Amino acid sequence: MNPILVDVLRGGHVESQHCGAVAVLDVDGGVLAAIGDIERVVFPRSAIKVLQALPLVASGAADRLQLDEAELALTCASHGGEALHASTVAAMLAKAGLGSDCLECGTHWPYNELASRELAASGARPSALHNNCSGKHAGFLCLACELAGPGVNLRQYVKGYVQPDHPVMREVTAALEAATGALLHAAPRGTDGCSIPAFAIPLRRLALAFARVGSGVGLSADHARAAKRLRQAVASAPFMVAGSGRMDTRVMDRLGARVFMKVGAEGMYCAALPERGLGVAIKIADGNNARAAEVVVAAVIEACLPLNSDDAAFMRGFSDCTLRNWRGTEVGALRASAALRAALAETLGNPG
Amino acid sequence: MNPILVDVLRGGHVESQHCGAVAVLDVDGGVLAAIGDIERVVFPRSAIKVLQALPLVASGAADRLQLDEAELALTCASHGGEALHASTVAAMLAKAGLGSDCLECGTHWPYNELASRELAASGARPSALHNNCSGKHAGFLCLACELAGPGVNLRQYVKGYVQPDHPVMREVTAALEAATGALLHAAPRGTDGCSIPAFAIPLRRLALAFARVGSGVGLSADHARAAKRLRQAVASAPFMVAGSGRMDTRVMDRLGARVFMKVGAEGMYCAALPERGLGVAIKIADGNNARAAEVVVAAVIEACLPLNSDDAAFMRGFSDCTLRNWRGTEVGALRASAALRAALAETLGNPG
Repeated sequence: MNPILVDVLRGGHVESQHCGAVAVLDVDGGVLAAIGDIERVVFPRSAIKVLQALPLVASGAADRLQLDEAELALTCASHGGEALHASTVAAMLAKAGLGSDCLECGTHWPYNELASRELAASGARPSALHNNCSGKHAGFLCLACELAGPGVNLRQYVKGYVQPDHPVMREVTAALEAATGALLHAAPRGTDGCSIPAFAIPLRRLALAFARVGSGVGLSADHARAAKRLRQAVASAPFMVAGSGRMDTRVMDRLGARVFMKVGAEGMYCAALPERGLGVAIKIADGNNARAAEVVVAAVIEACLPLNSDDAAFMRGFSDCTLRNWRGTEVGALRASAALRAALAETLGNPG
Repeated sequence: MNPILVDVLRGGHVESQHCGAVAVLDVDGGVLAAIGDIERVVFPRSAIKVLQALPLVASGAADRLQLDEAELALTCASHGGEALHASTVAAMLAKAGLGSDCLECGTHWPYNELASRELAASGARPSALHNNCSGKHAGFLCLACELAGPGVNLRQYVKGYVQPDHPVMREVTAALEAATGALLHAAPRGTDGCSIPAFAIPLRRLALAFARVGSGVGLSADHARAAKRLRQAVASAPFMVAGSGRMDTRVMDRLGARVFMKVGAEGMYCAALPERGLGVAIKIADGNNARAAEVVVAAVIEACLPLNSDDAAFMRGFSDCTLRNWRGTEVGALRASAALRAALAETLGNPG
């Protein structure tokens, strides 16, 4: 059983707790922190979108289609379906000569509640553009432009691009395999929420992949350049990777390229901390990413990076925060467990 | 550490798991099932609204104000804020000569997403009537009519009714104490999402209280009659206790008075199964009530009640269900763990 990483308090008493595992690795594969079982395979879900976007940039497709930083950031995003997210994805698709009807991610109402209500108030319905994965899928379609080659009917070519044996998905899977070093043909496999293949990979290998993303070490030269460009794009357009009020947007808006972080469904987080050459992978056992994974990734960032007091207090606002009820009364707290803080301090030391 | 009760599968592989505890008791306090630590205190949250509504009926206030079954069902509810919920709460308040401005539960957008979007599309904003606890609070205000007595300025009297020392909350706390047998003045205390006091109570005592609610045994005569009337009200108006598509509504719509069940925040469920004289209390350790607590309560009902094959299949649809993604593709399953099924079978036997 993995250790308790997060305590949820009410009136000073523990009400709920979240268990999980944390891996922090350096670029040489050295394990700096192993909290819980980091060899167990997990489905990384949306936390690895940056790895899945590497072929788009490495292939030259992003340059040829003149994708800008906001568009590149969207390829790594689980966005809230706000108006700017949807319109930017539409612009990307137009550059590829395709439309939202080519997206195979499915449709849902925007995850951002205000955006959802505004869409309803306007009398409109959501489209695949509002799907939180639409930017990643638009990136797949842009990659398809490159892979299809001249003279091919592109709309015909992209059909079924989410299937494991489509050329697009083969490229994407190969990039994931190269970055993690996991042998994916033998990995447990499922289907992701957006219909692409989902592979289960040891947490340790996911942390290694993110150490590589942050440093370029261990990646091919093309993938190393692509990783750097994608990190820079997200750092310059952090709204695109999540949205209003969301942790990934708020943290990267403040810390810039010092942190590349990405939430995934079912309690996943992956992060790269380039200045220390570290990669981080987190899995909350119960699948809670709405609160638990955020607390843990904040505590890991605090433990790994030398932060000034303002930035440290900002991060502490995620790892040790007050819970209020509907009237604004303080009712409890959400905080990194003593066990997590101790394990991080012991293995990572104090970077300040 | 409590045992794993729920497995979340993707592509046939475990992706996430939920741990927790289950207590099933009879009216004499006999423990039929103790899975995990049932002596540990938990905050029952909204799962015990029926206990908090006992004084409303027992005091005669419900009769004097001629509350109907839909209104009584709402006093036990965590409703979705659908139009019928909000309008019925408004009607209750009118019977008490009060308005929604007297509610101290706070305001949030309807939990039912369609209702939320419809409200936004109409150009309106939510009020305290849309708060999922507004029916319970309207019940408190109706009780206040009785407690205030003649000649008292009611609007003045009800101010601060959510505070522990207000006469309304003293009555409510006394009913909770009587039903559970827990000494609440010494219990860990917090504040609930709707601003009333929240007491932490051993899971075993919550199950006992629900055995009492289902049978009347162990309650005062007034509380026993009140419990029966509230159960009948919910059985006849199950939409009011939750709402469209919600588990409590669907199960009680189908099984009627055979089951009285109520979800609570942070992974809580309580249930009474009158025909077997059993009470059930469930706590998911990580606080997940959106999926985990539902799976567990369904498995417990299956194990406790003799169901015909259609009803058994209906309940199995909650305890062992397919997960689909945004395109409708089957991606996984949510199911009661083998450990939970085995523990239930061992202690409760097969009722069929």
